[in-house]
Amino acid sequence: MQLRYESRTSELWFKGSSPQKKLINAAENCVDEALCGLARASGGLSLLRGHRVVLRSDLDPLRGKVALLSGGGSGHEPAHAGYVGAGMLSAAVAGAVFASPPPASVLAAILCLHSAGASGVLLIVKNYTGDRLNFGLAAEQARNRGVDVDTVVVADDCAFNCPGKAGKRGLCGTILVHKLAGGLAEEGCSLVQIVTRVSEVLLGTGTLGVGLSPCSVPGCRPTFELPPGRMELGLGIHGEPGVKRSKVASADEVVSAMIDHMTSADSRSSLQLKAGDALVVCVNNLGALSRLEMAVVTRAAVVCLENRGMVVARVMAGSFMTSLEMAGMSLTLMRASPEILRLFDAKTSAPAWPNLSGGCVSGRGYLADPTAVPAGAHDANLPEGPRSPVMRKALERVCSTLLDHQEKLNALDRASGDGDCGNTHAQAARDIQVWLQSHVVPGCPGQLLSALAALVQEKMGGSSGALYSLFLTAASGHMTEGQSHAAAWASAMYAGMEAVKRYGGADLGDRTMLDALQPAVEELMKLNGATPGGEIAVLKAAAQKAAAGADSTRGLAAKAGRASYVAAERLTLPDPGAEAVAAIFGAVSEALEEPHL
Amino acid sequence: MQLRYESRTSELWFKGSSPQKKLINAAENCVDEALCGLARASGGLSLLRGHRVVLRSDLDPLRGKVALLSGGGSGHEPAHAGYVGAGMLSAAVAGAVFASPPPASVLAAILCLHSAGASGVLLIVKNYTGDRLNFGLAAEQARNRGVDVDTVVVADDCAFNCPGKAGKRGLCGTILVHKLAGGLAEEGCSLVQIVTRVSEVLLGTGTLGVGLSPCSVPGCRPTFELPPGRMELGLGIHGEPGVKRSKVASADEVVSAMIDHMTSADSRSSLQLKAGDALVVCVNNLGALSRLEMAVVTRAAVVCLENRGMVVARVMAGSFMTSLEMAGMSLTLMRASPEILRLFDAKTSAPAWPNLSGGCVSGRGYLADPTAVPAGAHDANLPEGPRSPVMRKALERVCSTLLDHQEKLNALDRASGDGDCGNTHAQAARDIQVWLQSHVVPGCPGQLLSALAALVQEKMGGSSGALYSLFLTAASGHMTEGQSHAAAWASAMYAGMEAVKRYGGADLGDRTMLDALQPAVEELMKLNGATPGGEIAVLKAAAQKAAAGADSTRGLAAKAGRASYVAAERLTLPDPGAEAVAAIFGAVSEALEEPHL
Repeated sequence: MQLRYESRTSELWFKGSSPQKKLINAAENCVDEALCGLARASGGLSLLRGHRVVLRSDLDPLRGKVALLSGGGSGHEPAHAGYVGAGMLSAAVAGAVFASPPPASVLAAILCLHSAGASGVLLIVKNYTGDRLNFGLAAEQARNRGVDVDTVVVADDCAFNCPGKAGKRGLCGTILVHKLAGGLAEEGCSLVQIVTRVSEVLLGTGTLGVGLSPCSVPGCRPTFELPPGRMELGLGIHGEPGVKRSKVASADEVVSAMIDHMTSADSRSSLQLKAGDALVVCVNNLGALSRLEMAVVTRAAVVCLENRGMVVARVMAGSFMTSLEMAGMSLTLMRASPEILRLFDAKTSAPAWPNLSGGCVSGRGYLADPTAVPAGAHDANLPEGPRSPVMRKALERVCSTLLDHQEKLNALDRASGDGDCGNTHAQAARDIQVWLQSHVVPGCPGQLLSALAALVQEKMGGSSGALYSLFLTAASGHMTEGQSHAAAWASAMYAGMEAVKRYGGADLGDRTMLDALQPAVEELMKLNGATPGGEIAVLKAAAQKAAAGADSTRGLAAKAGRASYVAAERLTLPDPGAEAVAAIFGAVSEALEEPHL
Repeated sequence: MQLRYESRTSELWFKGSSPQKKLINAAENCVDEALCGLARASGGLSLLRGHRVVLRSDLDPLRGKVALLSGGGSGHEPAHAGYVGAGMLSAAVAGAVFASPPPASVLAAILCLHSAGASGVLLIVKNYTGDRLNFGLAAEQARNRGVDVDTVVVADDCAFNCPGKAGKRGLCGTILVHKLAGGLAEEGCSLVQIVTRVSEVLLGTGTLGVGLSPCSVPGCRPTFELPPGRMELGLGIHGEPGVKRSKVASADEVVSAMIDHMTSADSRSSLQLKAGDALVVCVNNLGALSRLEMAVVTRAAVVCLENRGMVVARVMAGSFMTSLEMAGMSLTLMRASPEILRLFDAKTSAPAWPNLSGGCVSGRGYLADPTAVPAGAHDANLPEGPRSPVMRKALERVCSTLLDHQEKLNALDRASGDGDCGNTHAQAARDIQVWLQSHVVPGCPGQLLSALAALVQEKMGGSSGALYSLFLTAASGHMTEGQSHAAAWASAMYAGMEAVKRYGGADLGDRTMLDALQPAVEELMKLNGATPGGEIAVLKAAAQKAAAGADSTRGLAAKAGRASYVAAERLTLPDPGAEAVAAIFGAVSEALEEPHL
């Protein structure tokens, strides 16, 4: 990777950029309001009156233990106030957006923790001059007041091969320091012990960021500009320059280049890793990257590290140290010992710490095998029965009728939808015809309905396919034993109709297939108790009800389905879905009226 | 609020929009890779081979309990796979981005949960036709295979006053259903009991969204366009139209308008609330809103609801049901009973559930009072001592010298910085002069240093102010008792220098004030054990070391401070900060060399 930084000064700065839309009240209040929002939403947090300081609301457990304080400029939420809680920070101090907090507020926070009985106070400071000085000043003032204070400066940035004093910035690794130091403090370690352990851990921690967009301080224009299709590697969380600009590459390529850079033997700020090293990996959303992209990047990071022989011990992915609404992410790697993993896994009540599960990522089986599902009913060889011929005849008539109606249905659909209603039904008809040529019609009606459901689900497509399949599936499950053959059919049709209503979400009068289906099925219910001779009459009446129902849709406004987006005045023809149902009922009725074979 | 929707068809669609930058590999793989990333990162999750299904990796605890399955199109991460875990979903099925999952995958998930011994399977479905049909079809197929399945359809959208069948969309309220149903299942409730309770809860749940930007399906252009400065109220999570477009208002106004709309008596989709109602509030980031804005909005929501007499029982804020990278948020309100709060507070291992603390938001005191800090040392009336006159004389000489050097220091600073080094020091000198006119110089040197530290911190400003204040504060804390007066001064100066090095992050040779300070202070250490007559000689030597050190910075490249951004070739003059220190040492040495008063 070449480490030339494309100069920003040659750009047309801010050309045409309009101020970023922000959902705030006023730029000057946003930090205070955000801290208030956080503290109000989280039962475990309080605000220190007169300061931008968030405290644990229960300070009692700090008695005799080391308290942890961090902070810095705002705009990196949930850092740092979101990490206040048992097992992490005791308090956090915020400055204005991207500005260091005043020493007086840092001191107020330290003194508050001291008064609560903390045995010492550890300041965790990101490596920026302003923060170092302001926290340092407060530390010295507190020390002069008898408080045992010490400081850890986090400088985890791996961007620069030859970093100057100001070059190694404090980035998302700070969050891991909050967690580990918090765990140690909770276990009762002394200030010196915590500083020693955390300083060791920091030697094995590195971070690198990549940005696809700038961000903008509330009330200001973007901090810089990135031309379309470009990204910037190694940039800071305040929009400070990175090490390289390039075309936006694939997630796998970007992650691989980042890990190359972070572990390069040629860099004085890199992390030296060897095969077999166990790592904690933090994939940090700088602000506006979608969660979908974040998960793609997370996979890329795990796979890339494993391909290099690393053991990925833990992964956390989310918004941990943001840069306002910057679209981008950073990757933090931390060499992990069993002690580090114990502290990482320890409980915390900090609201911004994610709900992680322990256990090593690498080596874990994460694929489950599905339960074997029997082959589709339409492929099975099922026995014929005495009623197979008549069912075949009805089915053949339905198919030929739908093919006859193809153009009529398309024309109706053109007035209200996308004009393919006839085609969809014709496709289903042809598929059933093909199936009939190579299969017997099973004698058990439930099996026939189930076979048709599977066929339609697989071949018909669209909402119509799903609705017919639903109708047939529900019907097939309700061919109740112990009823007369005709009554069982009626119950099955009723169950199918109910399923269509329930899952399709339409009712009678909504200008859908239901306007034909429901009156027909309700008529069919008269089969229950009908004499064998009366059955044909009921079926014929049902077909007439279906036709009348379909015709009644002429005057209806569509309330469901695609036609509901079409103005009612334009809907003067009947609904094609209802017409198709009427045609099917008509076909079955005609076929059964004819003398049986 | 007027509920006219500004037609999108009159816009110049997509004018000049370039494809959204995305950190993915290929549009067609992003859903599978994202699911893999999620499952690999979370120890509690597995993938069902051959399907876009995420399962709890420990299915054993489901034996004899109701299992919960949800899902839908992708692009709403962390929904729904992030909610898989003990106490929430047992599995989640994903479709392509913004597309319903195929019934075969839903069925595979159901059968898997059934095989694991679940007593029944509840499907939680957002109210979109495709999801209703595909989940419904799978439900019917599973039922035909003997699985006890039921469905809850979530339609929590409050956007439309007169919603059509398709109008009440399923939004972020779905997440709350996952949690409550999960809690009930964990407690051993039956399928019927869960459906009954959750259906009741849904009657008291409503959601409304607001978007400041569109989003774009990977590989596609944005779903719609919003002109600069405009926002859209009531839009759906796939970019479906809302109810109103308007100018981006303040966070308080937007939240208030949303709550007005959600609770309007004129709307058939609204939530009827009355004063005293307890609520669970979910502030959901639709994707790209900064965390800072989210916290501002959270505060606005809590305050607005409390002002209307509601009791805010719980608040959750974060990214729960996103719309890719849409900048916007939604507000979900759920009327809360003690039972609902118990279920909401129950534990879950689902990775996307936040680390919430229980307890009622409204009525909780969230302000803590700071520990009283004594007034600044420079304002206190401290007793004079025998050495007060000589210290006053030295201090007066330092001030006059710095004022004499003002232009020289500015000129040096113009070559490497912003040219105000002389002004900053002159300002401090004038402030000390003013202070000397109205205060005695305290006889205790530690108190004098402390007073000067407070004065400089308050008045000098900038990094110089912080550094001098740090020096003086650290020095004041190290005026060790039991040493000779001169030796105590030397120790104090040494402690001050160490603090400057430590917190300022610079070393000798970095072209900073330290290049004068460190050699001078090291020389001063000879005061330890020096004869009273030798003390002046040491001080004089120290001043010479400071001058030589300052002069040595001519040839140095800047490694810290603002000059580190200036090319080394341009730095041929000495560092102004080091020159100022040399001037101060020279002034003190001169003043003490003269015969004492």
